Amino acid sequence: MRMYDLILKKRNGKHLKEEEIQWMIHEYTEGRIPDYQMSAMMMAVYFQGLNREETYHLTAAMAQSGDLLDLSEISGIKVDKHSTGGVGDKTSLALGPIAASLGVSVAKMSGRGLGHTGGTIDKLESIPGFSTELSESHFIQQVKDIGMAIVGQTKDLAPADKRLYALRDVTATVDEMSLIASSIMSKKLAAGADAIVLDVKTGNGAFMKKPADAEKLAEIMVDIGTEAGRKMTAVISNMDEPLGYAIGNALEVKEAIETLQGNGPKDFTKLVYTLGSYMLIAAQKAGNMDEAMQKIENSVKSGKAMDKFIEFVKAQGGDIQAVKDVSILPKADIIEEIPAKEDGFVGRIETEEMGICSLILGGGRETKDSSIDPSAGLILRKKVGDTVKKGDILAEIHGNDLSKVLQAKEHFYQNYIITKEKIEKKSMIQKVLF
Amino acid sequence: MRMYDLILKKRNGKHLKEEEIQWMIHEYTEGRIPDYQMSAMMMAVYFQGLNREETYHLTAAMAQSGDLLDLSEISGIKVDKHSTGGVGDKTSLALGPIAASLGVSVAKMSGRGLGHTGGTIDKLESIPGFSTELSESHFIQQVKDIGMAIVGQTKDLAPADKRLYALRDVTATVDEMSLIASSIMSKKLAAGADAIVLDVKTGNGAFMKKPADAEKLAEIMVDIGTEAGRKMTAVISNMDEPLGYAIGNALEVKEAIETLQGNGPKDFTKLVYTLGSYMLIAAQKAGNMDEAMQKIENSVKSGKAMDKFIEFVKAQGGDIQAVKDVSILPKADIIEEIPAKEDGFVGRIETEEMGICSLILGGGRETKDSSIDPSAGLILRKKVGDTVKKGDILAEIHGNDLSKVLQAKEHFYQNYIITKEKIEKKSMIQKVLF
Repeated sequence: MRMYDLILKKRNGKHLKEEEIQWMIHEYTEGRIPDYQMSAMMMAVYFQGLNREETYHLTAAMAQSGDLLDLSEISGIKVDKHSTGGVGDKTSLALGPIAASLGVSVAKMSGRGLGHTGGTIDKLESIPGFSTELSESHFIQQVKDIGMAIVGQTKDLAPADKRLYALRDVTATVDEMSLIASSIMSKKLAAGADAIVLDVKTGNGAFMKKPADAEKLAEIMVDIGTEAGRKMTAVISNMDEPLGYAIGNALEVKEAIETLQGNGPKDFTKLVYTLGSYMLIAAQKAGNMDEAMQKIENSVKSGKAMDKFIEFVKAQGGDIQAVKDVSILPKADIIEEIPAKEDGFVGRIETEEMGICSLILGGGRETKDSSIDPSAGLILRKKVGDTVKKGDILAEIHGNDLSKVLQAKEHFYQNYIITKEKIEKKSMIQKVLF
Repeated sequence: MRMYDLILKKRNGKHLKEEEIQWMIHEYTEGRIPDYQMSAMMMAVYFQGLNREETYHLTAAMAQSGDLLDLSEISGIKVDKHSTGGVGDKTSLALGPIAASLGVSVAKMSGRGLGHTGGTIDKLESIPGFSTELSESHFIQQVKDIGMAIVGQTKDLAPADKRLYALRDVTATVDEMSLIASSIMSKKLAAGADAIVLDVKTGNGAFMKKPADAEKLAEIMVDIGTEAGRKMTAVISNMDEPLGYAIGNALEVKEAIETLQGNGPKDFTKLVYTLGSYMLIAAQKAGNMDEAMQKIENSVKSGKAMDKFIEFVKAQGGDIQAVKDVSILPKADIIEEIPAKEDGFVGRIETEEMGICSLILGGGRETKDSSIDPSAGLILRKKVGDTVKKGDILAEIHGNDLSKVLQAKEHFYQNYIITKEKIEKKSMIQKVLF
């Protein structure tokens, strides 16, 4: 087999066979296919696409390029959850304990944030003492013991995807639907769960700005997972404004805790409960949505969900006092309130730019090596559709450097638009695919 | 400027600006843009194309990436000729002396053959003693003295094209019209002639199989040259069968000499005279085609063209006895005649495969490092449209290794098709563009 022939085939709009894709990914991972041929292939794929079979074979080949996590020691149906990323997305922090409190095994590998999006690992690390670096055996043992664990990626999962993604990132071949789907799903397949609940974001803060694109991506991912024998659910959720009110690591932990206590923001609670219900159903812990929702409400009301969170934090070395009394969590020195300059309604929030505000304040990571200020970020007080009177506080900015606070404030005003007419808020859950 | 942004721009169908293309080619030549970004760009160009301005700027940037030949010491209008390559194409050998005998300065850099196509340099080197390695000053002096010189590429012409072509060759991005045109024209612009006559081949032995493609390529090249201030002519000529009868180095030299003496094959003579006429017109040595044709006929009839060839061979160290008495040229030990197996007409000659026959016999080069047997090749006796009776000799195979001769014979039969009905021969000159 020659890579040249495969590039030509794809360029000319033909379909690659399973053995061709397997060979290509294997040889590329081994360094026997040069980057310059693979980038030409990726650009050809950008224009010609991959059909359903090709996408599945690519995903499977990438999943098989490295370690495959073996979760068989853990009894029951293991459910993973994945979000395509957004701003203020602290979903895993609340969802994990809720699901685990209802008997679902959650063995989750998460990532760090980059650019305007935050990462679950960074958020958890804002709890003093919390460790996300567990050995594989410790990780599995913890899930067996308390029903959940969240760690940074410990194993060499889908190294072909890692290499290919880095190449696509510098050759303008990232935004092709089947490649995006195969990249996400290769890691999910390697991570070993039996069922996967996807949270596919759409809106101005999401990778997929248009609902139709988010739906397309969700469809492809559901297809891949189903083909691989996993039980799949995909929820299309709104990211036309930040999720909840808090953006920033410790601020988001606080909001997740409030949600576990039943006092969370309405939109965020809705998303967590919906995703949680599909996790319960996938794990056969509930027969339908009504039953699942009821169970989740009971778990929150009874305090079981919060207890599970405390148990989880303790198991991973975190300071449970800081979780019980959130005033102990890292706090910023400066809290700058941002008043509205006019009357009207919140018309549009440039969501990615809200993530950039947090980045400016030190709450995000500009490059992979940047360090993070866990206390920095912002808390919105008004969201899309809310009525605003001049002087009302729109948001609080939390930071430790006055010049950065002022810079973030200016950036906030530029990207938070007040309109004269009331805007219809989009519903949180836009569609669910199986 | 970032290469990523330029790839994205082209991928999205936008046009690159002059300064962007110049920057890209300069940085690539300097090794500061990696191959994996350039190959993604080339694939994006394959799908999105380059417009007229982009194609010109790419060509100019590549021409300027290395040495530019300065022919200003040579008086008058310097005319270059370029063929897109075919089988049996010994045009330069006859055309150069004809044009030079009529006062046109021919300062030509030529290439070696590869695969099924032969190269002018290889053909000339089959003349004992002939050297194609002249210093630049020697090269220019010879043109000043006798009006012509043909050498291998002495200077570092268009190194960006060399690097880019090598990359395109392994990433399935060769066959894009504007890239083909800019590759050819970058070297022609760097080679310094005032006027360029292009011989664009079409047919089963040409790179452009379809006449419409050849015409498109010719148009783009004429546009580029005109934009660069060169006087351009492009002749679209037939390559649906080998040019003339001879294929192979010494065999082609012999046929070129016969043509200079007025006894050449009809199709080849027609092409040489046509291209020669356009060279004369470009050099302002003739006012129109009739006058140019008449001058060429006179030069051949009077022996002046042949005298110029002898003078040229002598100037480059070749044995002029071998040119005056072609029986001294390298000769093969084995000459195998190929008889027709049936009655009919020559219906189709797979031209590239005739080149492969010569390659099998040692007359061509399989890789850049292969050596060549100057005596090997074949002489067709019948061409498309000719009547054939069973037992008629279709061709002679010239070789020095019986097993290769038999292998070439078998390959010949497979690719030389006799039909029951007479086929209309295509005309040699299909179109001329200015």
